[in-house]
Amino acid sequence: MDSGLVLKTIGHLLIVEAVFMIAPLGVSIYYGESDFKAFFIAILITAFVGTILSFSRARKEAVRYKEGFMIVGLGWLLISIFGAIPFLLAGTFDNFIDAFFETVSGFTTTGASVLKDIESQPHGILFWRSLTHWLGGMGVLVFTLSLLPAVGMSSLNILKAESTGPTPGKLVPKIAETARILYIIYILLTGLEIIFLKIGGMPLFDAVTHTFATVGTGGFSTKNKSIAAYNMPSIEWVIMIFTFLAGVNFSLYYDVLMGKFKSLFKDREFQFYCTVIGIAIILITINITDSWGNILLSFRQAAFQVVTIITSTGFATLDYSIWPAFSKMILFILMFFGGCAGSTSGGIKILRVMIVFKYIKREFYKLIHPNSVISIRIGGQTIPENVVQNVIAFVLLYFLIFAGLSLILLTQDMDLISSTSAVVASLSNIGPGFGSVGPAMNYAGLTTFTKILLSFTMILGRLEIYTVLILITPIFWKD
Amino acid sequence: MDSGLVLKTIGHLLIVEAVFMIAPLGVSIYYGESDFKAFFIAILITAFVGTILSFSRARKEAVRYKEGFMIVGLGWLLISIFGAIPFLLAGTFDNFIDAFFETVSGFTTTGASVLKDIESQPHGILFWRSLTHWLGGMGVLVFTLSLLPAVGMSSLNILKAESTGPTPGKLVPKIAETARILYIIYILLTGLEIIFLKIGGMPLFDAVTHTFATVGTGGFSTKNKSIAAYNMPSIEWVIMIFTFLAGVNFSLYYDVLMGKFKSLFKDREFQFYCTVIGIAIILITINITDSWGNILLSFRQAAFQVVTIITSTGFATLDYSIWPAFSKMILFILMFFGGCAGSTSGGIKILRVMIVFKYIKREFYKLIHPNSVISIRIGGQTIPENVVQNVIAFVLLYFLIFAGLSLILLTQDMDLISSTSAVVASLSNIGPGFGSVGPAMNYAGLTTFTKILLSFTMILGRLEIYTVLILITPIFWKD
Repeated sequence: MDSGLVLKTIGHLLIVEAVFMIAPLGVSIYYGESDFKAFFIAILITAFVGTILSFSRARKEAVRYKEGFMIVGLGWLLISIFGAIPFLLAGTFDNFIDAFFETVSGFTTTGASVLKDIESQPHGILFWRSLTHWLGGMGVLVFTLSLLPAVGMSSLNILKAESTGPTPGKLVPKIAETARILYIIYILLTGLEIIFLKIGGMPLFDAVTHTFATVGTGGFSTKNKSIAAYNMPSIEWVIMIFTFLAGVNFSLYYDVLMGKFKSLFKDREFQFYCTVIGIAIILITINITDSWGNILLSFRQAAFQVVTIITSTGFATLDYSIWPAFSKMILFILMFFGGCAGSTSGGIKILRVMIVFKYIKREFYKLIHPNSVISIRIGGQTIPENVVQNVIAFVLLYFLIFAGLSLILLTQDMDLISSTSAVVASLSNIGPGFGSVGPAMNYAGLTTFTKILLSFTMILGRLEIYTVLILITPIFWKD
Repeated sequence: MDSGLVLKTIGHLLIVEAVFMIAPLGVSIYYGESDFKAFFIAILITAFVGTILSFSRARKEAVRYKEGFMIVGLGWLLISIFGAIPFLLAGTFDNFIDAFFETVSGFTTTGASVLKDIESQPHGILFWRSLTHWLGGMGVLVFTLSLLPAVGMSSLNILKAESTGPTPGKLVPKIAETARILYIIYILLTGLEIIFLKIGGMPLFDAVTHTFATVGTGGFSTKNKSIAAYNMPSIEWVIMIFTFLAGVNFSLYYDVLMGKFKSLFKDREFQFYCTVIGIAIILITINITDSWGNILLSFRQAAFQVVTIITSTGFATLDYSIWPAFSKMILFILMFFGGCAGSTSGGIKILRVMIVFKYIKREFYKLIHPNSVISIRIGGQTIPENVVQNVIAFVLLYFLIFAGLSLILLTQDMDLISSTSAVVASLSNIGPGFGSVGPAMNYAGLTTFTKILLSFTMILGRLEIYTVLILITPIFWKD
């Protein structure tokens, strides 16, 4: 492995991070609050370390498999460590673990918080906290739509396989090109939501920060009570719609921008995504209307929670812990789903879920026709068998990690519902779970060990598991 | 499909069932109890219907795919319906659903009970109840080690692939040969356990009925408090050891009988089975010793529950609901495992779990060596890729059915813990779960709909899912 190349790339990432920290610095100066010092020092430290690392001498030009995994894993970790500095210096947290947890939660677009009184924080800090979601979402798009296929993990990119497929050698120019298009779409969505939220009645600062948390499918709010604090249906609808949009494969927007509107309606994953959301909303609406009456309110509440959970955003408009067990279990199942591949959402992803269903269906067919060889097809396109294997193993690994980590958390004074939901809410980058980590609670009361473990769980989920776990296998280091 | 052949075979099965009902008839005459009338009438009805069906004219000689699925699915259902007659006629239950549930639970070797006061029942009824476990266990052995590979579902038989592999045409003689060996081993185990339980201090009637429930990994007891009623460590140890033995692949015993003792220690599945049991016992012992002290008692209790759960038996020596969440979650995870392939136990089975682990491991290797083609090997033997696919799809389907059925049960006034554990305890043929279906409770309080649903869940799990579900797919009926 070319460790010079790894360090050099991470150095560049840190310099970019330092540049982005100028934004919250500006915000704190604008509001005349004292946290500008924290940002000033954090920028200096981050830029300094980044510059030193960027002088590392790379032996190779191009990033290959091993360097790719190392850059992504180590990069996400270091960006979170340096991103935590403002929180520490401004006194938002009195210890590094809490600051690190909050930053990881931000960059992985999880939105699990250990901050008890959000509204007492200065504007700069809140802006930075929300900005980590926006930057994380952008990073994920580049990671899943450009970097992953480049390092040979094309499973998320199946439907676009013919249009991407760069060889590792041509990695850099291809990423730059794809990234530019993605950035434009991402920024367009961001701009649109800010305008709509402003029209809907939100103050500009809140509109910007909540937009960051929506398009990145993060879920950090600048209010203690999250979206429930506004108590305005118009705002809920705007956020719900943009959350839904953030869970769609971004390459579909590219097609739409190019005038190919039909792509959207022909896309099987998009159809499945809408179907799952539709069924879940109907079932929950019926179930909670039974308890509280008022079908229209129940519909809006059901729709908001379903969309916020399946897209792994995790905004709250109510404490769904008080819902009947049937509705809660639907949300729990949706926590594993996630949005479409190539979106900013976490979780297993709709495309993988579809492949699982087709994989099972194929076995039934083979029971009756034992000698037939059938490939799995989605939307008329054949999924190569090695990609199918990768997807299926991913899903199995997802559940294995879920069970293992839930078991470990039970040794940390957590009950079953809290531990299992904390793990899936972290692994799928959602944020709130059930029980002691429900939407009306937060992660502040957990043990230090749990916070560290869940921080790594968030990174593990965000980077599609393999990319992180491969770093601790002997196969990776043997050469 | 040759429906004549199907009906004829089921007719033969019913005649065999009627013959076996003579045993409880004898027991009730011996004890001079009034339930002998119930058995007399049940024998007449079952033998009559069986004889009529056996006159059906078969077009073909040999059982093929479709007939195989139909015989197994419909056969298990009809045997349970007729097996319920004695319970109804003797007044054990006042409705058919309860009697059907109890009989299905018996024949599928589940051991979930809707009988409130077991000890008030006459000996003949209790004997028949336990005998259904023994017959079910025998049926399962023949089904998984002879019938399944014969109808093309060889996934459970991978390690013995070369020694079985009959073509559908030669089905009958091959089954007869394999079955004879299995019966001898099964009867040997039965005899041994009865002797040991008698020595351990159990009355003969109890020794026989509990042996039936042990070797069939069923779990019905003739005591209201199950094994806890005896309060004797010697009895607990004997039952624990024979439960463990009933969870081992019976073809290993064949090797041992043939003098090949090394097979036992070279068998990878057996090693894995012992390892999982060992780790679970250690973890639970540490966890519960923490709460109650007395490490030796904790060890015995941990060992008994781990073995009884992983082998899908479900005897109780204590109410593990009072254990800490960590220990309970380990038991919950073990509920999915099951014992070795080719045993009488239910669940996913150790061999399939091993294939899942190897499947995931292979993906990591392929991340670093993307162009390599690697097969999955267990104990030096390559598992064909189509068998791997069948196994993996089975595991995914298992979890899918688990989630779906748990969701449905939540609409039936059950809480999350009770509904999920009732489903896995039925699907894996264990019996007791947690919450309202825990080891100190039973299934009597559930709604009629739930009892019907769980009855089918038990059959679904017992017949390895595909075999039952295929009957309701359009693929099966299209021809």
